[in-house]
Amino acid sequence: MRKKTLSEPKSKPRKTNVLFQKRQMQIIKKATKLFMKKGYVQTSMREISRATGIDIRNLYYFIKSKEDILFLVFEMIHKREEELFEQEGLMTVDDPLEQLKTLIHEFIYYSYDYADEILLLYRESKALSKRLLKIILARESKVVSYLEEILKKGKARKVFHFEDASFTANMIIYQLSLRALRRWNMKKYSKEKLIDLLEKQILKSVLA
Amino acid sequence: MRKKTLSEPKSKPRKTNVLFQKRQMQIIKKATKLFMKKGYVQTSMREISRATGIDIRNLYYFIKSKEDILFLVFEMIHKREEELFEQEGLMTVDDPLEQLKTLIHEFIYYSYDYADEILLLYRESKALSKRLLKIILARESKVVSYLEEILKKGKARKVFHFEDASFTANMIIYQLSLRALRRWNMKKYSKEKLIDLLEKQILKSVLA
Repeated sequence: MRKKTLSEPKSKPRKTNVLFQKRQMQIIKKATKLFMKKGYVQTSMREISRATGIDIRNLYYFIKSKEDILFLVFEMIHKREEELFEQEGLMTVDDPLEQLKTLIHEFIYYSYDYADEILLLYRESKALSKRLLKIILARESKVVSYLEEILKKGKARKVFHFEDASFTANMIIYQLSLRALRRWNMKKYSKEKLIDLLEKQILKSVLA
Repeated sequence: MRKKTLSEPKSKPRKTNVLFQKRQMQIIKKATKLFMKKGYVQTSMREISRATGIDIRNLYYFIKSKEDILFLVFEMIHKREEELFEQEGLMTVDDPLEQLKTLIHEFIYYSYDYADEILLLYRESKALSKRLLKIILARESKVVSYLEEILKKGKARKVFHFEDASFTANMIIYQLSLRALRRWNMKKYSKEKLIDLLEKQILKSVLA
């Protein structure tokens, strides 16, 4: 499956193929579990092949390398976050408080669904090459700057009160990863309770 | 040097010996640098020996294993934090706002001096055995509960306002690691500026 005939187009159909993406997602999910359990460096492609049930030669059809998997995990997190701003029209909502509340909710639910992936981002991003790490950090910064825009609008309308928009946006994004990064000490809270506490805490930090 | 004569006392003199502790601290510092650069798993005792200039056989006189070094790094962070509460008398200060402000300052300055060690705690604690990880998490919880005590006193005196003391304490400790965990996006701030922003943000979250 790795070899292609000459008539086969190079990459576009791979990226747009639903089945291809579904299989890639499967690989990412299983690999994340292994990376979390054993660490990224100690996980071999052979183990990923075993965990996914995909023959190792076929595995390379879907992903270029082990580093490619790690990169795709992080890409997936940021892609989802960017979609919220870009495709789901969060930036076209006029009311900044409404925007912030929606963002908080979406990010918190996401931090439950993708807790492993978020923790992996903090733990293993150092394993990426400088080039790929740069891409990941740029995407993360993009998310922060969307939030910064919302905060600035809210400040101009005197709904929000804070000193520095960039710092506040960074802090909010960071706070929204609380559960992923400190899961061991958050177990006493139900999902609903923790979401409620987080939302109140973040809103308090920007409301007067 | 690893072998001891029978007449040599077992461990007490090692732990109380100033030179022994100084050498151990040297090892921890150098090893942290290597762990940050290469990752914990990929760093060998041989490399630590080379970096410290301590012959590998002598190295084992000061530390039991590579895992022991990682454990000692985390112990050092928590020990410093506990000292603030226990030996430096923070818990005997009557005014809760004064207590909180002192804690914030001490922790922020600490997060500058030991940024690598704090980041390592989030990145590599998974590498510890379950037994050692449990000890580390218990020490971290102890720090959180000291802060919880301060917050509760402040709430009883109507100085602080929050819903859940444990959540708020966890969040404050987490916020104080902001720079260590998101250093790449904090470079635009001077140390003084970031400390000022962090202090204001945390105080706002508990003051009315």
